[in-house]
Amino acid sequence: MTDTADTQPGWFSDEELENIRGRMPVLYVQAVPVRVDETGQATHFGLLMRAAPDGSFNRSVVSGRVLYHERVRDALLRHLEKDLGPVALPRIPTAPQPFTVAEYFPTPGVTPFHDPRQHAVAMAYIVPVSGDCQPRQDALDLIWFTPEEAASPKVIEEMTGGQGVLLRQALAHVGHAP
Amino acid sequence: MTDTADTQPGWFSDEELENIRGRMPVLYVQAVPVRVDETGQATHFGLLMRAAPDGSFNRSVVSGRVLYHERVRDALLRHLEKDLGPVALPRIPTAPQPFTVAEYFPTPGVTPFHDPRQHAVAMAYIVPVSGDCQPRQDALDLIWFTPEEAASPKVIEEMTGGQGVLLRQALAHVGHAP
Amino acid sequence: MTDTADTQPGWFSDEELENIRGRMPVLYVQAVPVRVDETGQATHFGLLMRAAPDGSFNRSVVSGRVLYHERVRDALLRHLEKDLGPVALPRIPTAPQPFTVAEYFPTPGVTPFHDPRQHAVAMAYIVPVSGDCQPRQDALDLIWFTPEEAASPKVIEEMTGGQGVLLRQALAHVGHAP
Amino acid sequence: MTDTADTQPGWFSDEELENIRGRMPVLYVQAVPVRVDETGQATHFGLLMRAAPDGSFNRSVVSGRVLYHERVRDALLRHLEKDLGPVALPRIPTAPQPFTVAEYFPTPGVTPFHDPRQHAVAMAYIVPVSGDCQPRQDALDLIWFTPEEAASPKVIEEMTGGQGVLLRQALAHVGHAP
Repeated sequence: MTDTADTQPGWFSDEELENIRGRMPVLYVQAVPVRVDETGQATHFGLLMRAAPDGSFNRSVVSGRVLYHERVRDALLRHLEKDLGPVALPRIPTAPQPFTVAEYFPTPGVTPFHDPRQHAVAMAYIVPVSGDCQPRQDALDLIWFTPEEAASPKVIEEMTGGQGVLLRQALAHVGHAP
Repeated sequence: MTDTADTQPGWFSDEELENIRGRMPVLYVQAVPVRVDETGQATHFGLLMRAAPDGSFNRSVVSGRVLYHERVRDALLRHLEKDLGPVALPRIPTAPQPFTVAEYFPTPGVTPFHDPRQHAVAMAYIVPVSGDCQPRQDALDLIWFTPEEAASPKVIEEMTGGQGVLLRQALAHVGHAP
Repeated sequence: MTDTADTQPGWFSDEELENIRGRMPVLYVQAVPVRVDETGQATHFGLLMRAAPDGSFNRSVVSGRVLYHERVRDALLRHLEKDLGPVALPRIPTAPQPFTVAEYFPTPGVTPFHDPRQHAVAMAYIVPVSGDCQPRQDALDLIWFTPEEAASPKVIEEMTGGQGVLLRQALAHVGHAP
Repeated sequence: MTDTADTQPGWFSDEELENIRGRMPVLYVQAVPVRVDETGQATHFGLLMRAAPDGSFNRSVVSGRVLYHERVRDALLRHLEKDLGPVALPRIPTAPQPFTVAEYFPTPGVTPFHDPRQHAVAMAYIVPVSGDCQPRQDALDLIWFTPEEAASPKVIEEMTGGQGVLLRQALAHVGHAP
């Protein structure tokens, strides 16, 4: 799973975090930003384009760790503001029930999700965003796709670690053809 | 189930609708209006106070039929605007998945829900409302309750047909003690 | 939407039902039968093959109307027994919350779902089936597909009215790539 | 949150685990065992009675950590077998979507859930159990309650850390009055 810019590493040194990552599952939240019309229908899906450490590019949803003593909804808001800027106006869901749980294993094939660095368990949410999005930090750009574009092989292929599966699960959940 | 003002009776005469109501389930939507903070946490629950035909008063959530050739999300928006006014700014959910389905039977005791007039099946949603609510038509008033107030026996007892159960199911779904 | 054999037309004559179908939404349940392993993971998805009135064949999930004074869970059990036989041992979900709601409109394009005969609103459920399935009545056969097969274009294309979308939404909901 | 007998502490020493618990959220699963009838309706809710370290007794649902490289559904099965014995025949849900997420904070009042030892985030599931339950290890007994009994103040009060809230959220989710 591509982390979106994690500016708050928590209370661990990099070394400690690395050590823990190899020994217990790490709790994440993931958010699929959407534009909605007045009936709540998702008309566009937002994907971040970012540079991977190897210099390649890929698309991703908003992702990040839940920190110690942080509520899931606070983690969602923090990561959305971090990746979409301070005036994106995300509407965090009222219910803690995620639409799915994506389990990223360091071993490929256990689930559709894979993260070579760690075992991450991500509670995933659809988040309507009504404001102006200004991606910052390591995110180069945010592109809005129609449901048809988001479900296309071209877009899915630009997502790594199974995030393309997550995007299609999100499409399915809001009533579109995945 | 108390209907909220149903100004669009569809394409049936009253007699026809009465006839159908005794012979097939009628599809409803119900919406529990909530005020949320910036993290999506529901801070207040909105209940309509209305006069029952017998002159008594009761509290209820927003309810109404889904009409022929109307999408569920359009029915939700229509009933919310009808009961809360044109500037309530309801945020219709992105996903068609309701948080529960309330089955109102003409016979009490089959489920926790009861409607002497009909067999109604209501898909129920939590709907954040950010604008100004101006109840109109037969709704006398809209009162906002804190989660603690909404869960209190006093409020629950003022709801009929099992709507008190629905309200507590809504509280549970958004993470409050029901 | 292809009805699975509806042997209980309710209390309406064919003519009356036809009349109502053109004037109000009709409530349906749909069930996607799955085989699961001991961890609950869906390993196979069951599709009925049936003859359409025009002599062609198509694949479908289990579908049928909710009758007057019938609970949703009773309708689910009735239709599953009707289509899969008396010893299929379906495990009806404990919660009334469907995984999605499929809205079939007589006009194509309003939603991904289409039924030329009527406006049907179907609450859809995943139903693990552990017993022996003996399709009967007009269902010619029940075939079990792996998740990969179920998601393949070949299978999806043999489903009409948008049921291929519903199947992929079901795949997504249980954690598979849709 | 009362852990049910955690016989597999993972790959951490007690000291290491204690250290991590004070610095990052720990991922848990919780399961509310239910008896269901053939229509999937929950007729009884199972609660474990166990001795707390201080010698008092309390009731709880099935709870436990998700271990490194363990799927959520495998963790659910492991903890259910650990607490209910090898022939309980739990039916692990097909979908990874929990019915709620309970966030246990070391500080009381942040959420309805509290665990003085740690920040635990529990994905909670309803699990039908059809076999014979033989509680073992530190669980003294498993008692089945009707929905009315489970919702009674007497039972709720015997649950600590907010598990009474979780039980009522489970009641609400399966369609009972919470």
